[in-house]
Amino acid sequence: MADLQDYLKQLEQLDYSKLYDSDFFLTWEKSLDELKAIFTAADALRYLRSHNISTKQFDSGLGISLFRDNSTRTRFSFASACNLLGLEVQDLDEGKSQIAHGETVRETANMISFMADVIGIRDDMYIGKGNAYMHEVADAVTQGYRDGILEQRPMLVNLQCDIDHPTQIMADTLHLINEFGGIDKLKGKKVAMSWAYSPSYGKPLSVPQGAVGLMTRLGMDVVLAHPEGYEIMPEVETVARNNAAATGGSFKVTHDMKEAFADADVVYPKSWAPFAAMQQRTDLYGAGDFDGIKTLEKQLLQQNADHKDWECTEDLMKTTRDGKAIYLHCLPADISGVSCQEGEVAATVFDRYRDSLYKEASYKPYIIAAMIFMSKNKDPRAVLEMLQKRGRSRFGI
Amino acid sequence: MADLQDYLKQLEQLDYSKLYDSDFFLTWEKSLDELKAIFTAADALRYLRSHNISTKQFDSGLGISLFRDNSTRTRFSFASACNLLGLEVQDLDEGKSQIAHGETVRETANMISFMADVIGIRDDMYIGKGNAYMHEVADAVTQGYRDGILEQRPMLVNLQCDIDHPTQIMADTLHLINEFGGIDKLKGKKVAMSWAYSPSYGKPLSVPQGAVGLMTRLGMDVVLAHPEGYEIMPEVETVARNNAAATGGSFKVTHDMKEAFADADVVYPKSWAPFAAMQQRTDLYGAGDFDGIKTLEKQLLQQNADHKDWECTEDLMKTTRDGKAIYLHCLPADISGVSCQEGEVAATVFDRYRDSLYKEASYKPYIIAAMIFMSKNKDPRAVLEMLQKRGRSRFGI
Amino acid sequence: MADLQDYLKQLEQLDYSKLYDSDFFLTWEKSLDELKAIFTAADALRYLRSHNISTKQFDSGLGISLFRDNSTRTRFSFASACNLLGLEVQDLDEGKSQIAHGETVRETANMISFMADVIGIRDDMYIGKGNAYMHEVADAVTQGYRDGILEQRPMLVNLQCDIDHPTQIMADTLHLINEFGGIDKLKGKKVAMSWAYSPSYGKPLSVPQGAVGLMTRLGMDVVLAHPEGYEIMPEVETVARNNAAATGGSFKVTHDMKEAFADADVVYPKSWAPFAAMQQRTDLYGAGDFDGIKTLEKQLLQQNADHKDWECTEDLMKTTRDGKAIYLHCLPADISGVSCQEGEVAATVFDRYRDSLYKEASYKPYIIAAMIFMSKNKDPRAVLEMLQKRGRSRFGI
Repeated sequence: MADLQDYLKQLEQLDYSKLYDSDFFLTWEKSLDELKAIFTAADALRYLRSHNISTKQFDSGLGISLFRDNSTRTRFSFASACNLLGLEVQDLDEGKSQIAHGETVRETANMISFMADVIGIRDDMYIGKGNAYMHEVADAVTQGYRDGILEQRPMLVNLQCDIDHPTQIMADTLHLINEFGGIDKLKGKKVAMSWAYSPSYGKPLSVPQGAVGLMTRLGMDVVLAHPEGYEIMPEVETVARNNAAATGGSFKVTHDMKEAFADADVVYPKSWAPFAAMQQRTDLYGAGDFDGIKTLEKQLLQQNADHKDWECTEDLMKTTRDGKAIYLHCLPADISGVSCQEGEVAATVFDRYRDSLYKEASYKPYIIAAMIFMSKNKDPRAVLEMLQKRGRSRFGI
Repeated sequence: MADLQDYLKQLEQLDYSKLYDSDFFLTWEKSLDELKAIFTAADALRYLRSHNISTKQFDSGLGISLFRDNSTRTRFSFASACNLLGLEVQDLDEGKSQIAHGETVRETANMISFMADVIGIRDDMYIGKGNAYMHEVADAVTQGYRDGILEQRPMLVNLQCDIDHPTQIMADTLHLINEFGGIDKLKGKKVAMSWAYSPSYGKPLSVPQGAVGLMTRLGMDVVLAHPEGYEIMPEVETVARNNAAATGGSFKVTHDMKEAFADADVVYPKSWAPFAAMQQRTDLYGAGDFDGIKTLEKQLLQQNADHKDWECTEDLMKTTRDGKAIYLHCLPADISGVSCQEGEVAATVFDRYRDSLYKEASYKPYIIAAMIFMSKNKDPRAVLEMLQKRGRSRFGI
Repeated sequence: MADLQDYLKQLEQLDYSKLYDSDFFLTWEKSLDELKAIFTAADALRYLRSHNISTKQFDSGLGISLFRDNSTRTRFSFASACNLLGLEVQDLDEGKSQIAHGETVRETANMISFMADVIGIRDDMYIGKGNAYMHEVADAVTQGYRDGILEQRPMLVNLQCDIDHPTQIMADTLHLINEFGGIDKLKGKKVAMSWAYSPSYGKPLSVPQGAVGLMTRLGMDVVLAHPEGYEIMPEVETVARNNAAATGGSFKVTHDMKEAFADADVVYPKSWAPFAAMQQRTDLYGAGDFDGIKTLEKQLLQQNADHKDWECTEDLMKTTRDGKAIYLHCLPADISGVSCQEGEVAATVFDRYRDSLYKEASYKPYIIAAMIFMSKNKDPRAVLEMLQKRGRSRFGI
């Protein structure tokens, strides 16, 4: 492990000035320097905490979490990140609140933000909705701050939307950075972002989209593999294609899982729903056509069932680079014979990578904390240095 | 904005000694000096926070919230107030706890209070119940403290009961104080606290009751307007009448919305349920007569529908003082054509006052914090001064 | 009340070295010295807090609560304990999380623990499951820590399992210690841990089991009384028998409530379900036999109803030592004529002991805090001394 000075030196090389006072929606809206700065800040915060140095910077203040789906890991990651910096989490639970009773987004956004420094939102259910909703919230608090209603403008962190899952993919990538020994080492590495069979349907697209959107930025050779009919959002494919062109990496779509895995350095086999079907589902919900939704669900399950051979097996893993590709997953995975009869991954493969997968997940609280930290501090390097100098114990007396 | 010394000077003029170690149930149980002290403390705490000075006074301790209804803004206001002072909020959720399983109030009150410094309760559903319940809780912790069970006695804040909604109405009034340039400027201002049509029924009486109970204290000319049959609690009307007589203001009831709005400096158009009907509903619930409740609900909706013309329109607003009365609402409002077809207020009116309404709401966390602060500190002026001198940053290092 | 030096002197006499970095599952897995050290630390922490000295030792960090049942008092006790030490509670609510969606225990345990210092679990529903589940969680975080996934290993506190309810029974016992004037005074005192009638069924066995498992350690004469057919786990009876033999106390089972109460210094009348029936219920759940469960419930209620005379009456209380035994209960109690028609205890008896019962309950947050404190600190005596020397106010400025 490097020490804090190494991280400070890395930050010194980067232009991250625009992160100050900014929100985090999509990785491809950030410059490469900005992303690198977040990776580095995450590692630096982890360095301090693992050396029992408190990184608490807020003496009071709230971090608001707004989850439209259930979630263990993202909920706990957000709570951990807020706590690490000194913010108390307050959940805006639709069940508990009047949101369901017709409040407008703008009103709610202001009502919850009087003492909020961060708002984390997870809203990935409906195509065209989640990211748009986050922007509505962000615009509302911008206006509230400008109009003197809010004393501070809470920054917004996208904890998963219909387009991207930046905290997940950046955590995944930070894992790769630390495994391969530096962000520059990712250049030229082959990644197989592959669809895999799951007995459930309607899994979000944000992970594969986030992966191809980010990993192509880093000069990686990204192969997106899925059966025909499981296309992701075309806009994101365009992003990935343009990224690859700009960085000297590559982006390719195939319908052959084997092709994707061959000589891959990294594999990310994971189920998702076809973009077109998700858009259809969104329209059906909009129209209140619940029979239509049931029919669609049936179709999707049947369609999935035609591709049970899209499983990350031992045989497939053997075809990766030296048979030792890094296996990524956002968890929980559908493990064949464990969490379901037939699933995304063979039990022996999953088991072999368990530690690695947990380590991968452990970066998420730090990525979220780094996003907040870089947005809140104009001179984050100085602050990191002062935190070390202050030397307050996280635990102890 | 004044500076801290101005607030300290204002406090110096006031006798707020009885706020120490006291609860907050109803505004009319407090002296005018005490209310002024809370307004001033709220402004002072806001001054400190907006100057990035931490007002954290508790190094540990809990603020217990006990909500019998859903609520976004009051829940977040209470959480913000507690956090501002250093208390961690712990929700007593009936779903989560054994309260539903027959525990007595006295027992629960003690069980949740071992490390509680504040209890905030919202219980406004049943006439004759909410305020009484709060007193039961307060009495229980008084006794628990006296008997050596509790190490500290948590103070109680009424976050809305069947009689009053003091944190709301005091926030509304602090908004008026700051808009008009001082509490003394409220004298002689005309307030129209008016019923307005809503397609839902059974909205609480605590807001209109709180308004006439408080605003008459300040020498305002308060007109309570509603259709016949929408009377509020007669006891509160008596309070308002007596207040007016004592302060040189006035209190008048009319069944004519236009009359109320004419030349008004402040308007507060808002739906509520007839007191008598709410009492009837309470009795029906008590008797378990759910058919009776359904019949009553139907009647109430029909009765409401006879008064769709009670809407805060542009035309009505034009008749107020210079056409520019301050429009108040506790939010969320029923906005015609937005949150419902026909409602309390025209969309253009509501939109014009949106910023003002959000600002009004922003005082609530500070009012709650001030209630706690004034109850916990024997010498709040000294503490405010020491907080400034301590100069700990709310955010920063 | 003693002062801090007295507690430090008491600690000095004890060997509690193995508490460091350990979990708390069952009282009989701890040495007597270790238990005494926890009692003493609880009193010392209470001493400090009641003298307004902050015992906050964590500048950030999470305490995870995982409750499989509803609970007011244990939930608030855990939250209070965590807050007292500086940890923020994060609830892992099955409803809110993906636990229900097939995550393995090992995975979840790691996912929630990245920044967790404590995990408190309540899982008492199924015989053979709760304690085993806690061990699974503990093993998972041990491995996670060893494998470098977790930066710190959260300690685990059993907040009630199928076998023991250590935080409850130790709180009960600390109450006795303070009532009788020292742990040595418990020697030779007679305790009646007695079944009592309740109109509900299936109450957990952990309280009577915990009581006979702990109180026999302290040289008390423990009588377990219940109607035939209401046996507790035979393993725990063996523990109690062995304890008694080792300490010079005694352990006896009787089917006669009167015999148990005669000359008792302490009585603990409380309903529970027969161990054998709970095991049967566990098997039925496992087999998904819901009709079988209904039949069993009916049988249990009927069986209970045959023993309505097992009530803690005034007449029975008169037969205790000087008619003044200390009456214990974990609360809430089934009070005849109050919370149910016929129950565990007569209303007048319960009422007379109300203050004592609340005081008994007030020890639980401190017992939990002491378990955490003793596990986290290698030299707890030095830390207590330093906390006093630091002298930071819990409330104040």
